[in-house]
Amino acid sequence: METHLMEEGFRWFGPGDPVPLSFIRQAGASSVFTSLHQIPYGEAWSREAIRERKQMVEDAGLRWTAVESVPVHEDIKTGRGDLKTLFENYNNSLRNLAAEGIFAVIYNFMPVLDWVRTDMRWVLPDGSESLHYDPVRFAAFEIHALKRPGAEADYSPEQLEQAAAWWASLDDDARDAFVRTIIDVFPGVKWALSLDDIRAMLAKYDGMGADGLRRNLARFLQAVIPVAEEVGVRMAIHPDDPPFSVLGLPRIVSQASDVEAIFQMVDSPANGLCFCTGSFSARADNDLPEMVRKFAPRIHATHLRSTQRLADGSFYEANHLEGSVDMPAVVRNLLDEQDRRRADGRADWQIPLRPDHGHTMMDDLPKPAGITPGYSCIGRMRGLSELRGLMLGLRAAGRL
Amino acid sequence: METHLMEEGFRWFGPGDPVPLSFIRQAGASSVFTSLHQIPYGEAWSREAIRERKQMVEDAGLRWTAVESVPVHEDIKTGRGDLKTLFENYNNSLRNLAAEGIFAVIYNFMPVLDWVRTDMRWVLPDGSESLHYDPVRFAAFEIHALKRPGAEADYSPEQLEQAAAWWASLDDDARDAFVRTIIDVFPGVKWALSLDDIRAMLAKYDGMGADGLRRNLARFLQAVIPVAEEVGVRMAIHPDDPPFSVLGLPRIVSQASDVEAIFQMVDSPANGLCFCTGSFSARADNDLPEMVRKFAPRIHATHLRSTQRLADGSFYEANHLEGSVDMPAVVRNLLDEQDRRRADGRADWQIPLRPDHGHTMMDDLPKPAGITPGYSCIGRMRGLSELRGLMLGLRAAGRL
Repeated sequence: METHLMEEGFRWFGPGDPVPLSFIRQAGASSVFTSLHQIPYGEAWSREAIRERKQMVEDAGLRWTAVESVPVHEDIKTGRGDLKTLFENYNNSLRNLAAEGIFAVIYNFMPVLDWVRTDMRWVLPDGSESLHYDPVRFAAFEIHALKRPGAEADYSPEQLEQAAAWWASLDDDARDAFVRTIIDVFPGVKWALSLDDIRAMLAKYDGMGADGLRRNLARFLQAVIPVAEEVGVRMAIHPDDPPFSVLGLPRIVSQASDVEAIFQMVDSPANGLCFCTGSFSARADNDLPEMVRKFAPRIHATHLRSTQRLADGSFYEANHLEGSVDMPAVVRNLLDEQDRRRADGRADWQIPLRPDHGHTMMDDLPKPAGITPGYSCIGRMRGLSELRGLMLGLRAAGRL
Repeated sequence: METHLMEEGFRWFGPGDPVPLSFIRQAGASSVFTSLHQIPYGEAWSREAIRERKQMVEDAGLRWTAVESVPVHEDIKTGRGDLKTLFENYNNSLRNLAAEGIFAVIYNFMPVLDWVRTDMRWVLPDGSESLHYDPVRFAAFEIHALKRPGAEADYSPEQLEQAAAWWASLDDDARDAFVRTIIDVFPGVKWALSLDDIRAMLAKYDGMGADGLRRNLARFLQAVIPVAEEVGVRMAIHPDDPPFSVLGLPRIVSQASDVEAIFQMVDSPANGLCFCTGSFSARADNDLPEMVRKFAPRIHATHLRSTQRLADGSFYEANHLEGSVDMPAVVRNLLDEQDRRRADGRADWQIPLRPDHGHTMMDDLPKPAGITPGYSCIGRMRGLSELRGLMLGLRAAGRL
């Protein structure tokens, strides 16, 4: 039986990832999403470094289908510094990736931090661990630990009261551990950041606002999309996680109107989206199946996971087929887009997917630290397997 | 969204199983298929023993939906011994199970051995391990190790030649290890069987033939089905694995006509089938979706897995959504049967499923012996997750 499903991938953090490539193959993935994490942000990726990583992946019987990510240097987001060199380096990375046959490039344009949660080990009823975001706890971080001026304005009086009470209930060790939970996922951080470091990072965005950040994104796209087009690279911007402002920072990839604005900055198929259901779904007013339908031609990669939104504004990462995401409708719309691309004779018709954040479960639970939160092997394998079955079921229903 | 899927289960071998109930919950199962393995074959199960096991399962947040199995004593299969007591004990077990609210009972009527493979650690390209059956190797066992009279007649001259060559290539240690591979899965064997033990077990079936075994099965059904009917128990016979004669033994649950004959022995809804796709699929002339359609009202439990048949008559256990089984069509037909049962207002509309034999993979690979071949946790979890997604996809397609 001929089925045309999406290409199944798995994120791999490179040779230092505690999840080996052999496990990724056993999870049923045929490809990986990986990045050259060893290269500092802002430097160009050489063909040699790309080829070496590609060879490593292929030696394990897998393909490197999507780069996640070619990071955007903070100076590009703030619009300061030697932008010419940074753009040139970025374009050289794109050229070298294309020369090695890698054409999907994910990036994000979130200031300071890629994503944030308030608990990385939130225990579910089945004993597995999930990621959790609680605005009350985040308020406690901002107001009582970071002491960000004006942070109070982002919360309701009730949230502020709860945050103060929760913070007061923690002893010093618990406060330190909580602060580290939030800080340790700041991207590209190889050293222990202090709260003062964070304040300095935030200060660079003082007064910029969403429009300022959009101008900086537009400048970046104007610099790199022509090169991407020329060499056949499909750029895929990742949405904000969570999809609303945090730490008073501008966030400009949180909802459909944001995506539309970005697509219009440089109106090219190479200027596309990484459709992350987990990120978009943390906001109730995002209609995910409709967003897939609308943006389909420019969706160049997908992260599939679900969140469960709760009444108090918190959310946790649900099993991939449960929670707030209508995953069958999302996947059906993605498969429909693939059909259209195939019908158009496009060689790049297949949209790479990877399961996102899995629960930490079974043998991954007692493993020593080293697994990136959300990137346990077994929980992601469960998610990928569920998605595989879902795709097959949606496709097979047509012939049965 | 309301979906009515099959109830997801996982086999659990009881408190001695190296796979804990907590892992089974994390795999997404809501129920287990288990048996009181500590009770010798032929003895009645007390309500206390049943209740104790049930409590253990429920304490872990799971339900005990299917008994796998209430074993049929060898004397019942051979038609010798104190059958009256054996039937009485069996019926008492059924009464006690029903009194504790457990209504699906799986059993098999395979003489001497439940299932057989020739390699329990067959390595797949992804490094995971699968079960494999090779008729040439089985011929080597029968002819050169067991020296069963007349075994040669069951094989082609080419197979006999290959078997002899393969056997000759093994040293004594390799021969011993191979013989143990086959013998160690003989059911209910808590001690090391010798080849002479096997010969004695086989001798009890000398001259019985399929018709003789069918008469013994009919006698058993006539003794237990009335009681099952009375207390609401649904009996589910398991097909032969593999679905053809081995060791010269009669096998009477290998194909559709066998099932029809069994249903006619006692024409009652309580006289049903455990539909095992893995078992039936090892035979090319079994049309599985059609068999499900035909036998649906009497399918009381399901084992879902796939095999990949190869041209030389061998087969291995494929991933659950790959191989020779049209799993989407099988599952669609099972879901259709559930719909009919619900429409009829039946309380027991939901058909319990469990993934069968998973590959040994990831963290299960280096685990010390103790995992029953095919019953690794992670591989079965992959299978169950794929089936969950498949069911959801088939169901969701109707509303999308």
